[in-house]
Amino acid sequence: MIEQRSLKPGDRMPSVRQFSSQQRVSIPTALQAYVVLESRGVLEARPKSGFYVRAHHADGMPQPRTPQHHVVVTDFSDSDPFASLLAEMSAPGLVPLGGAVPSFRLLPGHQLARTMAAIARSQRSAGNTYDMPPGSEILRREIARRSLDWGCALTLDDVLVTTGGTEALSLVLRVICRPGDTVAVESPTYFGLARMLPELGLRALPIPVDSVSGIDLAELEAALDTADVRACVINPNFQNPVGFRMPDERKKALVELLTDRNIPLVEDDAYGDLQHTGPRPRCLKAFDTADQVILCGSFSKVLAPGYRLGYVASGRWHKRLLALKQVTTLGCPTLPTLAIAEFLRNGGYDRYLRGVREAYRIQVERMRQTGAECFPPGTALSRPQGAFLLWCELPPRVDSLALAGEARNAGISIAPGPLFSPNTGFRNFVRLNAGYEWSEQIEAAIQHLGRIACRMAA
Amino acid sequence: MIEQRSLKPGDRMPSVRQFSSQQRVSIPTALQAYVVLESRGVLEARPKSGFYVRAHHADGMPQPRTPQHHVVVTDFSDSDPFASLLAEMSAPGLVPLGGAVPSFRLLPGHQLARTMAAIARSQRSAGNTYDMPPGSEILRREIARRSLDWGCALTLDDVLVTTGGTEALSLVLRVICRPGDTVAVESPTYFGLARMLPELGLRALPIPVDSVSGIDLAELEAALDTADVRACVINPNFQNPVGFRMPDERKKALVELLTDRNIPLVEDDAYGDLQHTGPRPRCLKAFDTADQVILCGSFSKVLAPGYRLGYVASGRWHKRLLALKQVTTLGCPTLPTLAIAEFLRNGGYDRYLRGVREAYRIQVERMRQTGAECFPPGTALSRPQGAFLLWCELPPRVDSLALAGEARNAGISIAPGPLFSPNTGFRNFVRLNAGYEWSEQIEAAIQHLGRIACRMAA
Repeated sequence: MIEQRSLKPGDRMPSVRQFSSQQRVSIPTALQAYVVLESRGVLEARPKSGFYVRAHHADGMPQPRTPQHHVVVTDFSDSDPFASLLAEMSAPGLVPLGGAVPSFRLLPGHQLARTMAAIARSQRSAGNTYDMPPGSEILRREIARRSLDWGCALTLDDVLVTTGGTEALSLVLRVICRPGDTVAVESPTYFGLARMLPELGLRALPIPVDSVSGIDLAELEAALDTADVRACVINPNFQNPVGFRMPDERKKALVELLTDRNIPLVEDDAYGDLQHTGPRPRCLKAFDTADQVILCGSFSKVLAPGYRLGYVASGRWHKRLLALKQVTTLGCPTLPTLAIAEFLRNGGYDRYLRGVREAYRIQVERMRQTGAECFPPGTALSRPQGAFLLWCELPPRVDSLALAGEARNAGISIAPGPLFSPNTGFRNFVRLNAGYEWSEQIEAAIQHLGRIACRMAA
Repeated sequence: MIEQRSLKPGDRMPSVRQFSSQQRVSIPTALQAYVVLESRGVLEARPKSGFYVRAHHADGMPQPRTPQHHVVVTDFSDSDPFASLLAEMSAPGLVPLGGAVPSFRLLPGHQLARTMAAIARSQRSAGNTYDMPPGSEILRREIARRSLDWGCALTLDDVLVTTGGTEALSLVLRVICRPGDTVAVESPTYFGLARMLPELGLRALPIPVDSVSGIDLAELEAALDTADVRACVINPNFQNPVGFRMPDERKKALVELLTDRNIPLVEDDAYGDLQHTGPRPRCLKAFDTADQVILCGSFSKVLAPGYRLGYVASGRWHKRLLALKQVTTLGCPTLPTLAIAEFLRNGGYDRYLRGVREAYRIQVERMRQTGAECFPPGTALSRPQGAFLLWCELPPRVDSLALAGEARNAGISIAPGPLFSPNTGFRNFVRLNAGYEWSEQIEAAIQHLGRIACRMAA
């Protein structure tokens, strides 16, 4: 009824008794339906008055636009002043809207730890030996098996297990680039990458993204004509921070463009398993016909942040990565690796994903709704189709660094826009983490952010 | 009696009954004493004949000498062909004399895994959050506290937790050197370092070591006069592979020499906690008055190889290491870190060390004795005062690469000398791992190696 607009936002719902007789269901079933819809933010209960269709501002909100900026090579040198912000972003005790970390209550941490203990009991040598590169055969086999869902057909020999996605990305850039080289990246981009590039002596060429379809291919092509680009790093599925999922035709076109120019395409698929509905999105690697795409993945965002497990399928660069991995961290932590491998193997991971995808869908939607209600006029909100991050464009007068400072004083962490594109702005953008269960505390935090932003926008 | 040479090797011991009345102890006590001495390799039981003093050839054995070689800069480029040897060295199913890995039966793996599970239960967020650099405060505090035993007085702010000692060493070299730079190393040296240098684009300047006192300071000083050396990496305590413990005065002189020349001294203290007897040896860092020594440590060799936990105290380079660590692997695995921290904090580590030091002392001694009995004339054996590695110089005609091949065919892994000094020889040297409990299988393996070596030497 609500989706077909026969009931509009603000309309009073039929009483539970009426609804029960209209729909020929029992009263408990009808009540249950209302409660579920309330928990999803579709309805709201007003005391002594009944259920109402929640004002659904979020549907009408525009999506953030990436400001047009000159596409110029930068050394991302401004990323350094953000170090303290990064530290604060995940500070305990703050309402956790800053770091891109899901609530531990949604993660199967206890189950994984039990699995580790069981493995330590049954294979006494497990924690006491090195898991030498390319890493656990069981885990590599599971990753290869799953890759069919991504549109790839990796074999276990294609996969190198890494200490999280960070090591995967870092090894790849060290192997394919030399200091002084330029790497094309999305703008805005993942700040881990923005910090990594200058540390590796690399320069960045930020290319604007569209909130729906990802990197602007025309801008990218034009930039490649003028700059000497050694590699391109793309986060195609539920991009951090914007949340878009690149359409397949755009993915294909991107792979073709870079293949034509013989520029390695590094894919960061950290969030790919977290679609809110429908099938798992394909990877850029699925469109790779010329061994031009290097696929980096991670279990940090989708399963177990503290386990430090990631992987990379790097095709013709595999052997060089293997050698570099060996002298960078040697093996990966054995018991965490085996526990995750077992969780994948026994179907626990797929069961867990089914639940957590729906949880994130609801949490993101609740946050969008509350943001739509509280943020100042002129705000734009992303519509992520997966994962748990919300990208907000606030009115131009809102300074997100000042907003983050005030929020912190009020016990709330957020990630201000400039973190995602050093040197190129996003001053009035913030990224919000919807990885935690919706709660009064989080609702109040969003409302508080709204009040600060409204004051700044005035 | 045996130590005072009133009984010589081969002498028949008094019967248990005689010994009991001579020493005024009960017969069970006397028998117990004989059994303990047998288990330590001091006595041997001959069926129907009684106990005999074991032929103690090992005492008379010379120690290996590092061949004089021209001290020249090398790119260690020959290390690559050894990749397959390295893989085989820890292959399961072989008698484990190759890799420098202790027996899991000597390690408290079960206990650590239980601690991980308990932490995961009591702090549900633990495995699900990042342990951001500089890493767990509890662990850093424990490391700082322990550093008093090493002659240092680190504070927790001096310490950065790393993904094993490999990451510590690798981060340090990346921060203090640039590609093309030359690093002075010991000859022979840890092959992990020999592989790391060319991967980082660095060149090596191998300086011969003495089997008792470590790096030859005169040779080092002369080399520094001619080559432009950017850093020096030293493994001062129970060096891998030779096993020496640098005397304190030599440590002091080394630190002074490099301080005078303003060359950073990188200390790899992976084995420092494993002295066989007496006090814990001091670190080079203990003699550092000018913030010139960077101390790298690891729990891989002393406690938990598969946990990937190490640390580094890098003084004035700390901040740059922190930034590089962040983009190399982000945090360390949370639960393994907390489990080791707890094991240190609650005294479990110290209790465990007391037992394992004695076990290694006995195992090394048994291996030395058996080697002395079986290896060809002209063999020299190191006398490690700590850890579990034995360095053997075989007669010049023995080719350790061929020996390793034959051994492998017989189901035995060993580490041939050229692994420890690419380009500069040690062709007739092998390193043996005494990290496993002495067993008939290991004894037979050493005897088999002896037979092959005797044939080759003939």
